[in-house]
Amino acid sequence: MDLAPFIRHIPDFPKPGVIFRDITPLLADAKVFDYAVDKMVEPFLDMKIQKVVAIEARGFILGTMAANKLKAGFVPIRKKGKLPFKTDSEECSLEYGSAIIEIHVDAFKEGEHVLLLDDVLATGGTMAATCRLVERQKAIIKGISFLCELDSLKGKDVLKYPVNSVLHF
Amino acid sequence: MDLAPFIRHIPDFPKPGVIFRDITPLLADAKVFDYAVDKMVEPFLDMKIQKVVAIEARGFILGTMAANKLKAGFVPIRKKGKLPFKTDSEECSLEYGSAIIEIHVDAFKEGEHVLLLDDVLATGGTMAATCRLVERQKAIIKGISFLCELDSLKGKDVLKYPVNSVLHF
Repeated sequence: MDLAPFIRHIPDFPKPGVIFRDITPLLADAKVFDYAVDKMVEPFLDMKIQKVVAIEARGFILGTMAANKLKAGFVPIRKKGKLPFKTDSEECSLEYGSAIIEIHVDAFKEGEHVLLLDDVLATGGTMAATCRLVERQKAIIKGISFLCELDSLKGKDVLKYPVNSVLHF
Repeated sequence: MDLAPFIRHIPDFPKPGVIFRDITPLLADAKVFDYAVDKMVEPFLDMKIQKVVAIEARGFILGTMAANKLKAGFVPIRKKGKLPFKTDSEECSLEYGSAIIEIHVDAFKEGEHVLLLDDVLATGGTMAATCRLVERQKAIIKGISFLCELDSLKGKDVLKYPVNSVLHF
């Protein structure tokens, strides 16, 4: 199935010069959405993934379905101040701006197999910060999966784990 | 299965006097999470739901799994300025503060059967605003499902559709 027609390209959003990859047409079609998440988890099916970690907010859309398919638990990464329990945090640079992201300090047991996941790999700054948060809890990152990768931004270069991207732009 | 032990109660978050219902322990256990979403969709299995609508950000965590179980498409409701395409918007009052929420104007075909979903029913302000956004696109709201309902806040009173809540506090 060709997923590319289900991604809408919105120029100059959220700021001039950025082309935003809008995944809502893909989400609106149940079969296409299901197939896309199958493709996101496919390389990791035999890796005994115990937790899927995804990043607020669009990562949540894909992350819980991925976790369900892998029969893994789900761990949310959120923007500063949103997680209510004790947190660990990291600052990250983004394609547009910067942010602080947080994780609960009791997210993993030591040695758990983890898959990280987000909708779009741009500069990789948020995902690199997510890796640091997961590493500090001594979970084992088995890989990272994206729905879309923006190849020209070379985000893969800042990630030191196997990366699976379903679509490339 | 008793889901109540998997909800962590955090006093004075995000502000003094509010008890925050933290669903992350439930999300961390794959079987418990799967069972919880089963219970959220159970009353709506025979209603030919075509779209599941969920509210940023915690609603996304539950919404896409619910959509997948119902073989329905997924429609995100987001905070102002986050959706990239043409939007319709509504202001809503919250348990703490107020906000503007948005939906894409091409979210539904006329007459589609829709299930609305969020993690916690508090005052019902956000969900009532979501109903208005869905009604304006002439989709048919078959019901509303929550993981938790805070009974003392009487949020159900502002919602004019069948409400299913898995847990009550």
